[in-house]
Amino acid sequence: MLKDVEITRAIVESYMKELLDSLTVDVAIVGAGPSGMVAGYYLAKGGAKVAIFEKKLSIGGGIWGGGMGFNKIVVQEEAREILNEFGIDYKPFREGLYVADAVEVATTIASRTVKAGVRIFNMVEVEDLVVKDGRVCGAVINWTPVKMTGLHIDPVTIEAQYVIDSTGHEAQITQYLLKRGLIEKIPGEGAMWAEMGERRH
Amino acid sequence: MLKDVEITRAIVESYMKELLDSLTVDVAIVGAGPSGMVAGYYLAKGGAKVAIFEKKLSIGGGIWGGGMGFNKIVVQEEAREILNEFGIDYKPFREGLYVADAVEVATTIASRTVKAGVRIFNMVEVEDLVVKDGRVCGAVINWTPVKMTGLHIDPVTIEAQYVIDSTGHEAQITQYLLKRGLIEKIPGEGAMWAEMGERRH
Amino acid sequence: MLKDVEITRAIVESYMKELLDSLTVDVAIVGAGPSGMVAGYYLAKGGAKVAIFEKKLSIGGGIWGGGMGFNKIVVQEEAREILNEFGIDYKPFREGLYVADAVEVATTIASRTVKAGVRIFNMVEVEDLVVKDGRVCGAVINWTPVKMTGLHIDPVTIEAQYVIDSTGHEAQITQYLLKRGLIEKIPGEGAMWAEMGERRH
Amino acid sequence: MLKDVEITRAIVESYMKELLDSLTVDVAIVGAGPSGMVAGYYLAKGGAKVAIFEKKLSIGGGIWGGGMGFNKIVVQEEAREILNEFGIDYKPFREGLYVADAVEVATTIASRTVKAGVRIFNMVEVEDLVVKDGRVCGAVINWTPVKMTGLHIDPVTIEAQYVIDSTGHEAQITQYLLKRGLIEKIPGEGAMWAEMGERRH
Amino acid sequence: MLKDVEITRAIVESYMKELLDSLTVDVAIVGAGPSGMVAGYYLAKGGAKVAIFEKKLSIGGGIWGGGMGFNKIVVQEEAREILNEFGIDYKPFREGLYVADAVEVATTIASRTVKAGVRIFNMVEVEDLVVKDGRVCGAVINWTPVKMTGLHIDPVTIEAQYVIDSTGHEAQITQYLLKRGLIEKIPGEGAMWAEMGERRH
Amino acid sequence: MLKDVEITRAIVESYMKELLDSLTVDVAIVGAGPSGMVAGYYLAKGGAKVAIFEKKLSIGGGIWGGGMGFNKIVVQEEAREILNEFGIDYKPFREGLYVADAVEVATTIASRTVKAGVRIFNMVEVEDLVVKDGRVCGAVINWTPVKMTGLHIDPVTIEAQYVIDSTGHEAQITQYLLKRGLIEKIPGEGAMWAEMGERRH
Amino acid sequence: MLKDVEITRAIVESYMKELLDSLTVDVAIVGAGPSGMVAGYYLAKGGAKVAIFEKKLSIGGGIWGGGMGFNKIVVQEEAREILNEFGIDYKPFREGLYVADAVEVATTIASRTVKAGVRIFNMVEVEDLVVKDGRVCGAVINWTPVKMTGLHIDPVTIEAQYVIDSTGHEAQITQYLLKRGLIEKIPGEGAMWAEMGERRH
Amino acid sequence: MLKDVEITRAIVESYMKELLDSLTVDVAIVGAGPSGMVAGYYLAKGGAKVAIFEKKLSIGGGIWGGGMGFNKIVVQEEAREILNEFGIDYKPFREGLYVADAVEVATTIASRTVKAGVRIFNMVEVEDLVVKDGRVCGAVINWTPVKMTGLHIDPVTIEAQYVIDSTGHEAQITQYLLKRGLIEKIPGEGAMWAEMGERRH
Repeated sequence: MLKDVEITRAIVESYMKELLDSLTVDVAIVGAGPSGMVAGYYLAKGGAKVAIFEKKLSIGGGIWGGGMGFNKIVVQEEAREILNEFGIDYKPFREGLYVADAVEVATTIASRTVKAGVRIFNMVEVEDLVVKDGRVCGAVINWTPVKMTGLHIDPVTIEAQYVIDSTGHEAQITQYLLKRGLIEKIPGEGAMWAEMGERRH
Repeated sequence: MLKDVEITRAIVESYMKELLDSLTVDVAIVGAGPSGMVAGYYLAKGGAKVAIFEKKLSIGGGIWGGGMGFNKIVVQEEAREILNEFGIDYKPFREGLYVADAVEVATTIASRTVKAGVRIFNMVEVEDLVVKDGRVCGAVINWTPVKMTGLHIDPVTIEAQYVIDSTGHEAQITQYLLKRGLIEKIPGEGAMWAEMGERRH
Repeated sequence: MLKDVEITRAIVESYMKELLDSLTVDVAIVGAGPSGMVAGYYLAKGGAKVAIFEKKLSIGGGIWGGGMGFNKIVVQEEAREILNEFGIDYKPFREGLYVADAVEVATTIASRTVKAGVRIFNMVEVEDLVVKDGRVCGAVINWTPVKMTGLHIDPVTIEAQYVIDSTGHEAQITQYLLKRGLIEKIPGEGAMWAEMGERRH
Repeated sequence: MLKDVEITRAIVESYMKELLDSLTVDVAIVGAGPSGMVAGYYLAKGGAKVAIFEKKLSIGGGIWGGGMGFNKIVVQEEAREILNEFGIDYKPFREGLYVADAVEVATTIASRTVKAGVRIFNMVEVEDLVVKDGRVCGAVINWTPVKMTGLHIDPVTIEAQYVIDSTGHEAQITQYLLKRGLIEKIPGEGAMWAEMGERRH
Repeated sequence: MLKDVEITRAIVESYMKELLDSLTVDVAIVGAGPSGMVAGYYLAKGGAKVAIFEKKLSIGGGIWGGGMGFNKIVVQEEAREILNEFGIDYKPFREGLYVADAVEVATTIASRTVKAGVRIFNMVEVEDLVVKDGRVCGAVINWTPVKMTGLHIDPVTIEAQYVIDSTGHEAQITQYLLKRGLIEKIPGEGAMWAEMGERRH
Repeated sequence: MLKDVEITRAIVESYMKELLDSLTVDVAIVGAGPSGMVAGYYLAKGGAKVAIFEKKLSIGGGIWGGGMGFNKIVVQEEAREILNEFGIDYKPFREGLYVADAVEVATTIASRTVKAGVRIFNMVEVEDLVVKDGRVCGAVINWTPVKMTGLHIDPVTIEAQYVIDSTGHEAQITQYLLKRGLIEKIPGEGAMWAEMGERRH
Repeated sequence: MLKDVEITRAIVESYMKELLDSLTVDVAIVGAGPSGMVAGYYLAKGGAKVAIFEKKLSIGGGIWGGGMGFNKIVVQEEAREILNEFGIDYKPFREGLYVADAVEVATTIASRTVKAGVRIFNMVEVEDLVVKDGRVCGAVINWTPVKMTGLHIDPVTIEAQYVIDSTGHEAQITQYLLKRGLIEKIPGEGAMWAEMGERRH
Repeated sequence: MLKDVEITRAIVESYMKELLDSLTVDVAIVGAGPSGMVAGYYLAKGGAKVAIFEKKLSIGGGIWGGGMGFNKIVVQEEAREILNEFGIDYKPFREGLYVADAVEVATTIASRTVKAGVRIFNMVEVEDLVVKDGRVCGAVINWTPVKMTGLHIDPVTIEAQYVIDSTGHEAQITQYLLKRGLIEKIPGEGAMWAEMGERRH
């Protein structure tokens, strides 16, 4: 057999085994930005079976560009412990502010999260939630390229005890609940909250 | 002063200091795919001052999607040592083939490369090379969004003892030499080479 | 377990089993237009293990629109036997010309071809050929949506004793041989041939 | 006369005869997805004159891609009878679930539907309904490429005793009634219904 | 029957009769710009059966915008006779130059050309020529929206004793001959000719 | 002086004289479709100074494509008089229905309208209305290419005793009144009216 | 060191110094159209520290095209004083109307404004406002190419005692206040105001 | 008469007078970047009648963005005299390098150039050259929006003793000569020249 065909077999078999094993998880996290990955890391360390579904090819969400494309990240005192836990380097700037490299932050968190046992399915988009008896119990997923091209292809379903919406400002997953009338507003949303919550560093 | 303005100051100051310090490097690597980052890692460990310029926001090049989007990577015996050096997990498949997780591979290499002292300037595109007395001695760079939008904005220049073209199949940087008549063909290129070199796992 | 998750499992498992089984075939046909499917049908009936890779979601190639969107197909005497073999209805028009319904032609050929044992992988594009010792021995495939979106994702490889180029006028697969210098021109191509071969009904 | 011109004549004449004959039908079905075609099949078998208008070139709607592009279809016990009626192969998966090939399902249904006497006008879009005395009595149709290009070209009209909206989740045709105030809501629509009806396999 | 359906029948029947009757003509003109229409007008007046195929919805080519969008046309002494023949108003400007209204020029020529018996098939594109024994004897046509959308739909064929290329600077139809090696260069083309022929008023 | 420069001078001078003379008209008609031009024709014959602003390069609106691109027009008894007035050929179809050629209809109406003294400014878009003391007294115009490209260029203003909205189904000009609260609904609009008015032949 | 690298250092250092110095200003003006620049000019002359953020590469807003692309500007008596202050040439047209060259107006205002000490950050977009205790106290900015490409990159923040919305008709900045519920309507807006305010010359 | 109509008249009349007067000039400059404007300035000061045709709405070419969007310009000793002539502020950086503000440079040069009597026609593109007896004697111009939208509208012609190609690296105008075979290569072009000439600051 061609070596390339063996390689293909290795890829397809190992991916499919992992996908089939992930059809039922404890926690499904939507979005592999820093907060989604950090959540997955701590949950996996606590013993949960966790899968992250990320619609882009790469993880990291909006962190790569730092501010305005200047790829540095500033962390406040309260979050310094997380940098320490993940082993990310940082330098003090002024009192209570620490500067880290955006590329190092994104990749170190992801590296450590996967090593902690979290499976990250990149290029997979969550299209909808599965709701039963008024409780979220799964998610409906599809390949992102399918969504990008507008091809008419049905999604498949995974089961999860909990689904965490880590899609950022858009709260895209929570919107599905709103649209179906299962919640009336996104918790914490409002003019004040926008003030406090929208800027993240 | 607003805290957000202090954060802005921290980002701008630390980025600019790093950019100015990187205007003259030993080695400039174009493309933060796995091979570019691995090269940068070993060079930095050997004492070189290295900067990588990556046109995308994220690092990793074409590795994220594994094969056909099934995000697994297969490594042959010869390259196992690299996985070990970087501390990447893998499982044996058949004799001489090892399967690793694409997300772990991409992010662990990047994380370790930055920690080794390599600076990665993401979202920065190399437009051209600087050639003096028939020798490459620098590169001409610009923001990728500028290139993507077709805005008419001039680039700036960095100086490097060596420039490594790690842009993959396209050998995009080497093309600049070809276009200027400084080389006559891309070394190693040809039907045979295409056969051997084009498939990478 | 959720019924939808069981359905997902059924889909993924049966598809993957079929994909893995098709990594090595006797004949790989590129393009599920009428001629590719008819070829596959006769080959499968003769005992060959055949897979067709079709870059679109649907089969049928250019036959759906008949001529200028008027969805009728005209068949000459020489090809009437094929209509009979597949059980396609037709009406005589003038001496030696028969009219059939384009939708019936496309779907009946496909239905019968799959029943004859041919596996059709739709939405899968052949990117390149595998050539060893000057002989085609496989094909390099990828999801079409990946190609459409320009995402940087590597393909995988399948092995085949024979590869049939059934991509129509473009002879897209044969072009790969030309590009690599393995053939010097596409057989039968030329002004005369264009005259005779380009119009198909 | 050139043979190609005779072929053209055969195509234009036979198509036009069929189009003119279909300007008045018993049932017009909008959308040649599996459910629209199955409906047309049974209606035609029961003696109705049926035309299906499908906006794409190919029939089959969203069935070609199975789930997530894995081209398998899972059918529950209740629908197994339809597979039998159409002569579609399937394999049992677990209790009450059967797996069939998406390409075979799409094309076999279409092939049998056309043979049952249903005329499928592909690449024809229904733009609006004709309503008279509060009752739907026809449809307004146009070429799909005209709609895709935004060219300003008026549609034409066909007459039908009944119009079936088989456009799927969008219920696109039913929306026309809503827009004109002829119905107040789409029957069966609502949060519950969405729960039950949106996933189809 | 619905009146709109009778109207549809009138449109389809009269168009199809005309299309079928035009499958064989004496002269096929490609492009309904002013020169193509004027040629058709004189040929039809001389007794020829003429069809014009125009890829746009409207006739007139580049004349509507006058110069730089200022919708006036300037005619030199030599062409004044044509204005007189068609009954187009004009005003003298300076010696030997006459100004006419671009809208009047375009529409009056077209109106008179159709009345002279020329059939204009708008929104129909000539994709290729039919060549037999080294002589052009027909043209291959398709709907323009089909070409614009890139849909894969085959063209149909018409027969003509002569085909006139009236597509302007591009000489698009003549290019087909060049591509097939039937002519070696476009007659009259060259630097000098460009000088003299490219500016038309 | 170059002859081409004299021609340019003739075009610019005659256009500008006409534009300046049309800054104040009796009636401004928006849209050079058949109904707008017919209105202009009768108004000009009655002595009014009329300008038509048409956003496309060509006149004729949606009439060129007949129905579904089959370029024939059906006229009912009531409108036959208009065909006679303009000297347009037609053939009887069934009782009270007459078929005419779409190209002849469009161009003959336009030709006669310009000859009647109406000025047609093609490629000029009406962006807004001028309203003074609750009465429309002018229109705000711009080049269509400016609008198409989204370039930020201010419009200019013309004065008119009456402005006729002849933009068809969209009633685009009337919408400006609605948007400003000067009218509450578009007269005649509603479900019934849609039934009666939307189909035009 | 390469001279081009010294040039790069000069550009980066001087820009960054200016950017850091502008993180806290007295007045931030959004939009470098004529009115924004004139405001900045007078404020700077009065001693304020002023920065203008302009999303385009060039200043001038909609003034470059004059009316309909005819690049002249008409100024009324009331604004003549401004032309005099900036030293812009103009010619009287009729009583109380003066014509100036659009290019001269745009560039002379900008030239004088920068010389008066105003810093213009072009290609920088204001995405949002910073509001504290119900008072605007800063703005959130980003590179325009980042916005144009839809790249996911966070903005940075600047501090300002006052923010002037000089974005024209859209009142884009004021909309942010509206969206957050801090104001109920844009002052002066309404049908009447639209009448009076929308046309600017 | 409406005041807005008077304003329109003022704009149209003054623009047209200027356009007609510029149909014959001494020097036509293509491109209103800094070098084109500086050339125009000195020529006009020397008594020549000069028109600049600029395809964008704004002048300044690629100077607005400084380097990489950092809007500063570095000038070497040799060009300092020009800054002095135009009255542009600058600061010394290191020996022989001076830093100026890109916005001030662009707008001050333009302001002074117009005041020197040069007419700048912005949003006007040069499509081709007029060549007579082997000598350039004019240019063919059109509205840029016409070119951008691909609308089929003919250009007009202006006459000039000399045409200066100031379109930058592309040498777009000079290409027309090359295409027509009037010159054999662009003077000064080549690998060496590229080295020396391509970087401008």
